[in-house]
Amino acid sequence: MIVVMKQGATQQEVDRVVHLIREMHLQDHVIVGIERTVVAVIGDDRYKDQSTIESCPGVDRVVPILAPYKVASKQSHPEPSVIPIPGPLKPSVGGRKLCLMVGPCSVEDRSLLLEVAHAVREAGGTCLRGGAFKPRTSPYQYQGLGEKGLELLAEAREITGLSVVTEVMSIDQVDLVARYADVLQVGTRNMHNFNLLLACGRAQKPVLLKRGWSATLDEFLLAAEYIIQAGNPRVILCERGIRTHETYVRNTLALAIVPAVKRESHLPIIVDPSHGTGRAYMVPSMCRAAIAAGADGLMIECHADPEHALTDGAQSITPQVFAQTVKELRAIAEAVGREI
Amino acid sequence: MIVVMKQGATQQEVDRVVHLIREMHLQDHVIVGIERTVVAVIGDDRYKDQSTIESCPGVDRVVPILAPYKVASKQSHPEPSVIPIPGPLKPSVGGRKLCLMVGPCSVEDRSLLLEVAHAVREAGGTCLRGGAFKPRTSPYQYQGLGEKGLELLAEAREITGLSVVTEVMSIDQVDLVARYADVLQVGTRNMHNFNLLLACGRAQKPVLLKRGWSATLDEFLLAAEYIIQAGNPRVILCERGIRTHETYVRNTLALAIVPAVKRESHLPIIVDPSHGTGRAYMVPSMCRAAIAAGADGLMIECHADPEHALTDGAQSITPQVFAQTVKELRAIAEAVGREI
Amino acid sequence: MIVVMKQGATQQEVDRVVHLIREMHLQDHVIVGIERTVVAVIGDDRYKDQSTIESCPGVDRVVPILAPYKVASKQSHPEPSVIPIPGPLKPSVGGRKLCLMVGPCSVEDRSLLLEVAHAVREAGGTCLRGGAFKPRTSPYQYQGLGEKGLELLAEAREITGLSVVTEVMSIDQVDLVARYADVLQVGTRNMHNFNLLLACGRAQKPVLLKRGWSATLDEFLLAAEYIIQAGNPRVILCERGIRTHETYVRNTLALAIVPAVKRESHLPIIVDPSHGTGRAYMVPSMCRAAIAAGADGLMIECHADPEHALTDGAQSITPQVFAQTVKELRAIAEAVGREI
Amino acid sequence: MIVVMKQGATQQEVDRVVHLIREMHLQDHVIVGIERTVVAVIGDDRYKDQSTIESCPGVDRVVPILAPYKVASKQSHPEPSVIPIPGPLKPSVGGRKLCLMVGPCSVEDRSLLLEVAHAVREAGGTCLRGGAFKPRTSPYQYQGLGEKGLELLAEAREITGLSVVTEVMSIDQVDLVARYADVLQVGTRNMHNFNLLLACGRAQKPVLLKRGWSATLDEFLLAAEYIIQAGNPRVILCERGIRTHETYVRNTLALAIVPAVKRESHLPIIVDPSHGTGRAYMVPSMCRAAIAAGADGLMIECHADPEHALTDGAQSITPQVFAQTVKELRAIAEAVGREI
Repeated sequence: MIVVMKQGATQQEVDRVVHLIREMHLQDHVIVGIERTVVAVIGDDRYKDQSTIESCPGVDRVVPILAPYKVASKQSHPEPSVIPIPGPLKPSVGGRKLCLMVGPCSVEDRSLLLEVAHAVREAGGTCLRGGAFKPRTSPYQYQGLGEKGLELLAEAREITGLSVVTEVMSIDQVDLVARYADVLQVGTRNMHNFNLLLACGRAQKPVLLKRGWSATLDEFLLAAEYIIQAGNPRVILCERGIRTHETYVRNTLALAIVPAVKRESHLPIIVDPSHGTGRAYMVPSMCRAAIAAGADGLMIECHADPEHALTDGAQSITPQVFAQTVKELRAIAEAVGREI
Repeated sequence: MIVVMKQGATQQEVDRVVHLIREMHLQDHVIVGIERTVVAVIGDDRYKDQSTIESCPGVDRVVPILAPYKVASKQSHPEPSVIPIPGPLKPSVGGRKLCLMVGPCSVEDRSLLLEVAHAVREAGGTCLRGGAFKPRTSPYQYQGLGEKGLELLAEAREITGLSVVTEVMSIDQVDLVARYADVLQVGTRNMHNFNLLLACGRAQKPVLLKRGWSATLDEFLLAAEYIIQAGNPRVILCERGIRTHETYVRNTLALAIVPAVKRESHLPIIVDPSHGTGRAYMVPSMCRAAIAAGADGLMIECHADPEHALTDGAQSITPQVFAQTVKELRAIAEAVGREI
Repeated sequence: MIVVMKQGATQQEVDRVVHLIREMHLQDHVIVGIERTVVAVIGDDRYKDQSTIESCPGVDRVVPILAPYKVASKQSHPEPSVIPIPGPLKPSVGGRKLCLMVGPCSVEDRSLLLEVAHAVREAGGTCLRGGAFKPRTSPYQYQGLGEKGLELLAEAREITGLSVVTEVMSIDQVDLVARYADVLQVGTRNMHNFNLLLACGRAQKPVLLKRGWSATLDEFLLAAEYIIQAGNPRVILCERGIRTHETYVRNTLALAIVPAVKRESHLPIIVDPSHGTGRAYMVPSMCRAAIAAGADGLMIECHADPEHALTDGAQSITPQVFAQTVKELRAIAEAVGREI
Repeated sequence: MIVVMKQGATQQEVDRVVHLIREMHLQDHVIVGIERTVVAVIGDDRYKDQSTIESCPGVDRVVPILAPYKVASKQSHPEPSVIPIPGPLKPSVGGRKLCLMVGPCSVEDRSLLLEVAHAVREAGGTCLRGGAFKPRTSPYQYQGLGEKGLELLAEAREITGLSVVTEVMSIDQVDLVARYADVLQVGTRNMHNFNLLLACGRAQKPVLLKRGWSATLDEFLLAAEYIIQAGNPRVILCERGIRTHETYVRNTLALAIVPAVKRESHLPIIVDPSHGTGRAYMVPSMCRAAIAAGADGLMIECHADPEHALTDGAQSITPQVFAQTVKELRAIAEAVGREI
């Protein structure tokens, strides 16, 4: 870290900072500038609370230098990670082949689920997404089928070969969901639920980690770090839009995070344009944009009858639109050296 | 809800919307304007997914009319709720008397905790805050003392009479924390952790619910609704700053939420200017502003030795500053018809 | 507009609203719901201040129904507009052919400008961008060459055939800039400078209108409406990133605005990934994403020696990177039915 | 500035950075840490473009150390500035006495203006605000009375003694407005209109500078710096809310900027809770909060007949509410050592 002293800080105040740095078993390096003094700190200060130094008299601010994550960083693993997903189609995320995770927002009904699953498989998808446990903003909204939904997902896998991605909302659901699912999804609302991250870190399935609504890149990678540190290196990141002042979308899809993650981390990243926009009409163009930006795959909400979907009808595309979108994506994928 | 059709929507498209509305057992009311047709929906549509209608051809957007919360609304309970907190000092939140919840970010050490607790009591605080389980952005940061911390808090209550407010991070901690604490705190990162909200709704202690970093007012009140619906009406709201583009603060304290909550809900609301700014030097002025705005109390981080605090030193004020701040607050409180 | 009354609003309060609506020469339509009454207003209320009704007792809020813009809307002009740009290469924006506007942030030096201009032309660009008048956040930063810069741009056009796009910062510069430039650029900081918009509306050159840092879609299209209403229909929109909480970028590039503009308006829209990210390493991937999303062109900062650029070096790509990027873009363009 | 090299940056890359620093006539100071090298730069680098170094290979990022403003900083002028406003009541901003600038959003009509002006004067206000030139988001909205409005304001000053504050929207209006007004207001939409700032810097009247919707603190103070550097040190800052994801308000009033400005600058700062919330019912509580936070005054929209106001009725309070609010403010002012 770099400690920036206030203009006019006294020698005593600088000495106090130096003293605290040495107490932390770190090295100090005082640089007297023309207007301000800064104290550079040498050593691994990730384990120290920089906030304490910020509370000292005469200190203006503290600038962290080291990235706060380690095992999620590219330095720790210079090659991109490729995360294999269990299942007969042998999908994986992070290699040359793009991964398409597609399906209804919620598992609602056996025949609707199978209809979508068949369409997904046929069009080139390899994973079936669908919520059995649903985190809903209102207690009055549809809360999902629970274990019954997991059973339906497993049956759809049996029939179509698609691997199953579904959300886990709390620690006590991890074992249950891991029995049925091929990928455990941690939703946006739980990205900062550290106990859940740790529990997923002890599970034996890959984890799809969605970015929090207002999470920074560092926080996103630190959430992955929790999972990896707990023993599970199979983390797939997912951008799904952030909260901003914009109102023509439900969320603002921040695609520049794709090259940013590729620069900072070895973990693969996919994009969810359904939640990332909240508008079905935008999904095809944002799918194309995400792949063009370098994403390793897509998560898409697809429903055969959006007008009767119990959740998220407005952002679900139909199987027909999905099939058409995949055609366009194949050309884009090729243009960026990937394939579907 | 009001369904706004696109300009040029066909009669068939309007009919389709009307059909779906009737399928939902709601009433429709079609209004043909000069440029657009709108369909007003009559009936309680809180239990319906408005998103499905938004997915219909010819629909531009759906505007909700009813507030999505019920038991948290002022309509359900026109008088302001006053939430009593267990403890010998008989504090409460929402009445004429303001409630000051003060203490260190983390419980670190018995003697430091007691030193702050005595100072808080002496200056006029009635609740001691302090984290035993700490949600930390990085797995390398200090994670709290766990149950040992809860014991120290209980001891401090024994000695000083202050009621204890402390955070619960996951369902499996609820019973444990409720045994020691007088108020269960649900942190910012868990405001959308619905399973935790439900578990707190079954607990026998008041719940302090902090607003999520990017939560809207509706989402905040719906999180309270989860707790109340699950059986616990004793919910205290807490504003603690939101994520914005601002960088001179850690969060942007949005004080206008105080009059907004007072208008929409019967629940009391307090303000946390420590997290709400992240800067100790701003805490006294934001304490004053919060009380002047009509807040029912404050949550403040206070540490006798911020330079050695294990967490949040930069936003902790000292007991001396706290005592001075309370003096100023007494005059402000009086000006707005309250007292400390 | 729809006037939503508060729960429990009195008949007198509803009558007052109805009275005000009639005073505005609009029609009212009162709908009594189970919990609330709403008053639908029929007629063109774009010229009325909806805020006044919001100030009436018993009114909860007013929801606008009509889009606030007219001549910028798709209804007024169902076919996409194609904006021709003066110049020997006959570029245009909005048709099948994509438009690449490329060049240095600032015009600094004749030989550097010509070097970039030749490279842009060779790689497939048709417009040369470059600032002669520079809006700088700090008065201590480089402020541009002024008219001398315009002369150099005109010379570069003479030599390379590229059309010239350059910024106009104030009313008194409009005539001067219009004498040299082929496209007048209104920058982000001036999107709400309505007097400047009106002056550009009276100019005889196409206008490139950059979205404000925190402008909504409606505000963006209304800024275009000012220019068109003043007499100049040749408006090209440009997304260049918005202010959010994100810190790994200078701005958050909001690509979903591309399909949103295509749905609401006939105006073409291009994307500026240089300002939209602030990081040169992200520019190629965001160029690809923008074209894949359906943008009509790109504005890119390109400098032969970014390490010595007087402005924006960190977000400028080199001519070599630009040439390589164009190659990738050709394949993407083809995949979405466009060409370069 | 501090140049943070990427992990694994080569010696050659570090040498390149050092070379560029020396080219800028600044001093370098290389610090080799355990994971990264940083290069501290010594000297006044405010006049240099830090962006160029960020474009060098091997550089991760550049961290500015010096505040970018000078004459607006507290270092340049350690005592708070008190800005006198012309007029018989001799108001000033920044001293012990708080300054209340109150009046209608727009000047609409002589008798309404005088009615409000008398009420403002009687209740304790010393300045009359009112727009003659109105920056409106839509070209279809009321655009103000222009010079006729200025004449009415001057007449109201003649009659009541209140000083006049009114907005100037473009360079060519500066002389005209300065002839009638006592304070030139630069609105939110023009905070980044640097040519207008320079023109106001050459005027002989104090300038009220409103913060841009998404301006940072540095950008706000740099806008003031433009005015001061151009020759006019009489700058009054005004916080009026920022754009965030919040929807229960028109803008989010960020009151923590008050202590931040007091720490960084000598300039006075007032608060506009009318635009800062957009809701009349919130204005009294936010007035109280602003004064409690340490603001030097308030700008408030007040209209005798909000239901017929041509602009901003929803956020205008009546003279009765204003008079009541001033009573509460007197007690708050006293509590923080100020007076009205």
